[in-house]
Amino acid sequence: MLLKKNIPIGYVFGKVKYELLIILLYSLTIAVIHQFFLEVPISIPLSIPTILGTVISLLLGFRSNQAYDRWWEARQVWGAIVNDSRTLARQVINFTESQYEEDEVTQLRQRMVRRQIGWCYALGQSLRRLNPVGGLEKYVSRRELESLARFNNVPVGMLDQQARDLKRALEEGYINRYQQMELDRTLTRLCDAMGKCERIKNTVFPSTYSLYIHFSLLLFISMLPFGVIEHFGFLEVPLVVFISACFLLIEKMAIHLQDPFENKPTDTPMTAIANTIEKDLRQLLHDQDEPEEKRQGAFYYIM
Amino acid sequence: MLLKKNIPIGYVFGKVKYELLIILLYSLTIAVIHQFFLEVPISIPLSIPTILGTVISLLLGFRSNQAYDRWWEARQVWGAIVNDSRTLARQVINFTESQYEEDEVTQLRQRMVRRQIGWCYALGQSLRRLNPVGGLEKYVSRRELESLARFNNVPVGMLDQQARDLKRALEEGYINRYQQMELDRTLTRLCDAMGKCERIKNTVFPSTYSLYIHFSLLLFISMLPFGVIEHFGFLEVPLVVFISACFLLIEKMAIHLQDPFENKPTDTPMTAIANTIEKDLRQLLHDQDEPEEKRQGAFYYIM
Amino acid sequence: MLLKKNIPIGYVFGKVKYELLIILLYSLTIAVIHQFFLEVPISIPLSIPTILGTVISLLLGFRSNQAYDRWWEARQVWGAIVNDSRTLARQVINFTESQYEEDEVTQLRQRMVRRQIGWCYALGQSLRRLNPVGGLEKYVSRRELESLARFNNVPVGMLDQQARDLKRALEEGYINRYQQMELDRTLTRLCDAMGKCERIKNTVFPSTYSLYIHFSLLLFISMLPFGVIEHFGFLEVPLVVFISACFLLIEKMAIHLQDPFENKPTDTPMTAIANTIEKDLRQLLHDQDEPEEKRQGAFYYIM
Amino acid sequence: MLLKKNIPIGYVFGKVKYELLIILLYSLTIAVIHQFFLEVPISIPLSIPTILGTVISLLLGFRSNQAYDRWWEARQVWGAIVNDSRTLARQVINFTESQYEEDEVTQLRQRMVRRQIGWCYALGQSLRRLNPVGGLEKYVSRRELESLARFNNVPVGMLDQQARDLKRALEEGYINRYQQMELDRTLTRLCDAMGKCERIKNTVFPSTYSLYIHFSLLLFISMLPFGVIEHFGFLEVPLVVFISACFLLIEKMAIHLQDPFENKPTDTPMTAIANTIEKDLRQLLHDQDEPEEKRQGAFYYIM
Amino acid sequence: MLLKKNIPIGYVFGKVKYELLIILLYSLTIAVIHQFFLEVPISIPLSIPTILGTVISLLLGFRSNQAYDRWWEARQVWGAIVNDSRTLARQVINFTESQYEEDEVTQLRQRMVRRQIGWCYALGQSLRRLNPVGGLEKYVSRRELESLARFNNVPVGMLDQQARDLKRALEEGYINRYQQMELDRTLTRLCDAMGKCERIKNTVFPSTYSLYIHFSLLLFISMLPFGVIEHFGFLEVPLVVFISACFLLIEKMAIHLQDPFENKPTDTPMTAIANTIEKDLRQLLHDQDEPEEKRQGAFYYIM
Repeated sequence: MLLKKNIPIGYVFGKVKYELLIILLYSLTIAVIHQFFLEVPISIPLSIPTILGTVISLLLGFRSNQAYDRWWEARQVWGAIVNDSRTLARQVINFTESQYEEDEVTQLRQRMVRRQIGWCYALGQSLRRLNPVGGLEKYVSRRELESLARFNNVPVGMLDQQARDLKRALEEGYINRYQQMELDRTLTRLCDAMGKCERIKNTVFPSTYSLYIHFSLLLFISMLPFGVIEHFGFLEVPLVVFISACFLLIEKMAIHLQDPFENKPTDTPMTAIANTIEKDLRQLLHDQDEPEEKRQGAFYYIM
Repeated sequence: MLLKKNIPIGYVFGKVKYELLIILLYSLTIAVIHQFFLEVPISIPLSIPTILGTVISLLLGFRSNQAYDRWWEARQVWGAIVNDSRTLARQVINFTESQYEEDEVTQLRQRMVRRQIGWCYALGQSLRRLNPVGGLEKYVSRRELESLARFNNVPVGMLDQQARDLKRALEEGYINRYQQMELDRTLTRLCDAMGKCERIKNTVFPSTYSLYIHFSLLLFISMLPFGVIEHFGFLEVPLVVFISACFLLIEKMAIHLQDPFENKPTDTPMTAIANTIEKDLRQLLHDQDEPEEKRQGAFYYIM
Repeated sequence: MLLKKNIPIGYVFGKVKYELLIILLYSLTIAVIHQFFLEVPISIPLSIPTILGTVISLLLGFRSNQAYDRWWEARQVWGAIVNDSRTLARQVINFTESQYEEDEVTQLRQRMVRRQIGWCYALGQSLRRLNPVGGLEKYVSRRELESLARFNNVPVGMLDQQARDLKRALEEGYINRYQQMELDRTLTRLCDAMGKCERIKNTVFPSTYSLYIHFSLLLFISMLPFGVIEHFGFLEVPLVVFISACFLLIEKMAIHLQDPFENKPTDTPMTAIANTIEKDLRQLLHDQDEPEEKRQGAFYYIM
Repeated sequence: MLLKKNIPIGYVFGKVKYELLIILLYSLTIAVIHQFFLEVPISIPLSIPTILGTVISLLLGFRSNQAYDRWWEARQVWGAIVNDSRTLARQVINFTESQYEEDEVTQLRQRMVRRQIGWCYALGQSLRRLNPVGGLEKYVSRRELESLARFNNVPVGMLDQQARDLKRALEEGYINRYQQMELDRTLTRLCDAMGKCERIKNTVFPSTYSLYIHFSLLLFISMLPFGVIEHFGFLEVPLVVFISACFLLIEKMAIHLQDPFENKPTDTPMTAIANTIEKDLRQLLHDQDEPEEKRQGAFYYIM
Repeated sequence: MLLKKNIPIGYVFGKVKYELLIILLYSLTIAVIHQFFLEVPISIPLSIPTILGTVISLLLGFRSNQAYDRWWEARQVWGAIVNDSRTLARQVINFTESQYEEDEVTQLRQRMVRRQIGWCYALGQSLRRLNPVGGLEKYVSRRELESLARFNNVPVGMLDQQARDLKRALEEGYINRYQQMELDRTLTRLCDAMGKCERIKNTVFPSTYSLYIHFSLLLFISMLPFGVIEHFGFLEVPLVVFISACFLLIEKMAIHLQDPFENKPTDTPMTAIANTIEKDLRQLLHDQDEPEEKRQGAFYYIM
């Protein structure tokens, strides 16, 4: 699913290039002043940036952990969507009895399984704040699509349609009452997964923490040259730039990881996952239409 | 749901402004004494505040973690309330059979789904220690409202009414016995979510930890000027104020995060979440009444 | 439920007062020797206590985490008991059909709900190693109480009585077979909660860790005066006492938190929680007997 | 269950006595060389062991955490076994109907509950790699015991026998179809608990981590005397021995905690837990045979 | 299951031998320059590598944690597969009634249990990107094998076949409707386990973190000789090599642990686990064919 190719080094550093440029100029200025206008001693004891460095390391560690947890939870939820989509398809296909009305049951199966495929795409797009019904016409009928327009939250509406089909199937006798309950539980799990995605999307990481860490980091970087100038001279410049790059990058990483549904090249690969689901579900359905491979091109990197 | 706009810088620092003022005066006094009355050496080795700083960082890290966990659990529980409210509505609408008494069944559906909406508002208000039945007349009948007055814990009473409606529905034959069980399980999950909120609300963070951390922090701040005065002179004042601000802010953050239901601008946005639930549930019910948008104005920031 | 009033400062320091007194005398002796008999240099480099301080901070952090987790799990389990008690009452009241034998069904409901209230008190008392049947005569019949005497573990016996009542209710036709299963699942969850409490109660925190941390702490404290005497002189005494107090208090906190069922003023407020359950369940039952408020007086603080 | 008596100090240090003896001789040699053959300066700056000490602290912290988690999970699983054994007994006793064939049903109950007791002992013994059927003749019939001989994994075979009894009970009409399902779910949970124990038993903690930590620790200890010899002289010897003892003990602790089923005095007290289960289950069964108290004597300490 | 034999020391260091060789030459060069061409002072204060060392320790700790969690989750999932395979076999054998058509039921049992064994092997091989149907002819019929060829994801297809067999069993009356649901739930859990494995396999650890940690580590190692050369002289060479080896090994460990399905000697022992499952399931089935012991030879070590 996810390609493990390397991220271009330029892409990595591109995210912090303006910050690094400013730091370069700043530390260069200090080195020049220290070398040629050495009237005032500007060096400070290294232990002051050291204290700050330890505190910032701990805070960045805390933040990386929380950001990683959000990112990993997003992946777990989408993993659960894969599992429950397969389970729904397996149940729809193997619970329904097709003794008399072979045709209608086959249609029901196709309708429900395809709607499930569409649900995955619609959820992905609505999390990315794109048009949730875009491209859905391949998976649901035109009439259904119109009735979905009424919903603010399209995936909620689609789950309701699944439940309606189950109700009809029970009334027609295609499934029994236990099977309706079991299929409804699968819908409940899908509903939970959807709600979890929305929670991660809608809950902002406490922004004062971010602010505080950012300010501390700036203070640390601005003190660093004074701490090392004495021993390194002009070598201080690359050293400061490199150490700053490390800290800034780790901060940027956390910022990206903590919002896994932001339609950036590095978010959760929801389209690719939905594609995999489509392939599996169509094969379960003996469906000929192979989904066209939706290659994501060079735009998606794995952080 | 949550607006990602920046918190005004004033709001951030406003929370620690008195502390910072005192620290400013304190460090200024020390700088003045050091500069002009330099008979006694008042400097101490920097490694003493350093030890304290490391210990405090570790303890603040521990505390931030626990506070964040409480805050995040509160959000998870409300996420589960969103999911189970949708599930309840989907089940109520698609389980009930409306063959003969179309009208009564429709009324039952409306009554149960609206009561669920009301339950979310009532739970939010009772967690904030506001009047739990305030505004409920929009969602439940007058008679029901009166019988709720008997309950200390209004949401518990409302779940009981839902269960009573299910019992009646079973007796009338609108739902079958399996469907009653499945709906009751959804009520059980809602009951669990309510209990979890109450647990977070009612369990105070061990206050001796807080006390200990606060005392250590004061000791650390009062030693800091002596440690850095030698190398910084008057520059010591802004440095001490800034470092103190960092530590105090991170402590304040933890204090706010650890109580996510305190009716402060930064708590869990329960009203906004209940609003979203109302919108979704009314659309599932084909209900015309759009809920009036309860804008929270400029009062709610995201921490 | 839990009162958020401050812990008297005396109570906090009372727990470590003997230790602090000894440390006071010890550090005073060293200061006197250093001041007046300064023939031998007794100062050591500060970095030696610093290493120890870092190691101890990490270990205390590890221990605080585990202790907090035990304490929080205890609260979660009692939260689950609140939820499942409410669920049991809701189910007992709304599942049982009272078409013919109104009276018997009402008695069954009352018996089961009151027994559940009694179960909560009995569990709390048996976890605190008090007489588990003390006060139970308010909630269960005399005959039942006698048959409970046979059990080592009284709450296990009470769950068995609940299951017996369910069996009888099924045989009499008051509940159907699905409802018996659903109620039995609620009993299973209560049985799990009980077992979790016993696990926390009976599993001692690995005591060698505690021992090791305590020894290291003593070594650290006994070295601290030598490390700071050079720069502080007599000021060393309050400094050492204060830093020792911090470390000792955090250690004591962990010791208290890790045993949340020890019948100390700071343990899990099981009686208060059982009281809340009683109030809710009696209101669900339309029961007139208000439980007398069992105030815990000034004896219970929140740590 | 677990006795909280102190571990003899000799037992604690006994585990590292050879290591400490070698360290004693080593540090003594260095002190003697430093004192009497002081031609070459052998002291090194203390900051070198300090770096190593910090790294090792972090790694030991990581390892302690993982080891504690394994140990705590083992306890949780055995707690779940207690709960599910009680649940199984409660269900077997209260689900089976004894209208006609009182005798056969009573025998079925006794057979299943006793087999469950035997299962707990058998699981404990097979985890300790002892003979799993030793002593089982008290709980199951001779014929059953023989048919268990066929199984590599005896507890798996016993669960199968429970399921066979349930099948027979359904065929005879002692339980209904829902009750069979519910009892089978309890068997499934017991099967899960068994599998979790085997997973912990069979999954070795990544041994390269252990190796790495051990080597680093040796390097740290061998450098420590050189770092402190300058300031302490002969006092260096007890200091080095004590600090080494701390680090070595914490490492040993982790090694013991991480393998909670190794038939050592400090592992999970499975026999004691099975004993408690036996007592509870026999009381539920109104069984007269009190289990003989299997005292573990002075051999079992709690770590 | 897993053999606890020691990893050859050569294997451990073999993984970092090229890196260590380069570091050896590098530090040797610096020592030679320092000793014989001591015109320029090249020593730097040790506190600069110390800061870097602390930061790297924290980051390696973060990474080790996440890598360990992935590895441990992989083991947990395979533990769940063991449990659910046993449960499936127990249910298939004890739910099916063989009153009339003894033969057909026996065939059904054998077919389903053997297919489950095959499923475990197929899952293991497809996670390792080997041919998933290789060797399956021992467990499923030729016709089934052909119909599996149609599936991209063979284990998904096999679960579908299990569900088909259940459907047929219900139609023939071998199992009842509750038993179908219960068996389907076991299939759902197996489907979840499969999806979790795929999630771990397909989700790359955020590679920018890895990159950042690796760069910082290189910087740290390249500075280390300058920091210690002053006090150690030529002894600096083994010291630097050893410390570097520690850090590099811990990094390598994390890299291996974080990808537990990569067909390397140190990954999750899926074949051995599937072998254990085969043995248990065949014994439940009274199947004579003992699986040939698939010894993994000397190629598999436990990390």
